[in-house]
Amino acid sequence: MKYPEAIDSLIEALRKYPGVGRKTAERYALYTVNRFSEEDIDNIVSAYLKIKEDIFKCPICGNITDTDPCYICKDESRDQSTMIVVEDARDIIVMEKINKYHGLYHVLNGAISPSEGVGPEDINIKGLLERLKNEAFKEVILATNLSNEGEITAQYISRLLEGTNILVTRIAHGIPAGGNIEYADEITIFKAIEGRRKI
Amino acid sequence: MKYPEAIDSLIEALRKYPGVGRKTAERYALYTVNRFSEEDIDNIVSAYLKIKEDIFKCPICGNITDTDPCYICKDESRDQSTMIVVEDARDIIVMEKINKYHGLYHVLNGAISPSEGVGPEDINIKGLLERLKNEAFKEVILATNLSNEGEITAQYISRLLEGTNILVTRIAHGIPAGGNIEYADEITIFKAIEGRRKI
Repeated sequence: MKYPEAIDSLIEALRKYPGVGRKTAERYALYTVNRFSEEDIDNIVSAYLKIKEDIFKCPICGNITDTDPCYICKDESRDQSTMIVVEDARDIIVMEKINKYHGLYHVLNGAISPSEGVGPEDINIKGLLERLKNEAFKEVILATNLSNEGEITAQYISRLLEGTNILVTRIAHGIPAGGNIEYADEITIFKAIEGRRKI
Repeated sequence: MKYPEAIDSLIEALRKYPGVGRKTAERYALYTVNRFSEEDIDNIVSAYLKIKEDIFKCPICGNITDTDPCYICKDESRDQSTMIVVEDARDIIVMEKINKYHGLYHVLNGAISPSEGVGPEDINIKGLLERLKNEAFKEVILATNLSNEGEITAQYISRLLEGTNILVTRIAHGIPAGGNIEYADEITIFKAIEGRRKI
């Protein structure tokens, strides 16, 4: 069995996506051939080209954006004294969906990982320190993941900021909303107990 | 929360794929932004454009192809007297993978479905009859699906060919290889018993 070369190329290109193996990529490619109109193909092609042309990282916070600065950094009505530090620009999207936080962000683009050889100089900590020096932040909320890497990164940053006037906090970890204690893993239960609050 | 327009366009374009909902499309689009190099984007764009430019349906059998006729129809070493009739060009790919059948194919591009208003004139039965009239087929193997639509379509075609010299056969249905009878559905078990052969 063989596919025409154009189909093989599309299968290979689609396999780059996370969780897309050979079979899924084949299914998508054949669906493209069988069900996509010329207009559908034009739309997806122009979307990819727009990503390449229009999207970049905000030079201030590292958020993905098509404006300089991004819509968060340029919004003067937001609280200029609070910053949430995240590993990935996707985390900003999740947090903005909640529509409860109105401060600024900083994207590290990764986390410190000794096992993978990712050091502090490989993620955007330098940019973070510069912002904290020049802008009037009162609180930095560390919202890196609850992985080893995220914890190491949070520890590292909090130590760097010791002795400054900036309040450094860590987002709460615990049992998720609607979560069943029975099914929670040990670290989560430990964090939930450790982070207990008076009610 | 809002995405830059280019990302929204890509999310919408990717949602066209089967099984890709909003969340998956978001994940793919953000992966594109965060992890695809310019070259990766160029590759996927040129793959889509090649699909549009190079791929068409074989005018003889309806297979998806970039040559006229397709590599199967133009291969004179294949058995020109046997044809497998399938609903979809993807079925050809599956059958060719086995590398056991060396005859020709015909793609109906669908199946008769009274409930969805798809009649015999809406699928490529006309082309099938023309081929059977003009070419020297001795056997037509109906390999439409074991769905209601596939069965109706197979019945319909077999009735059209009554009184001709062409042997009309239907692929065997039964318990799949390695399949457990306990877990087979009733229709499959019925078909397996009905299709029993002397050993």
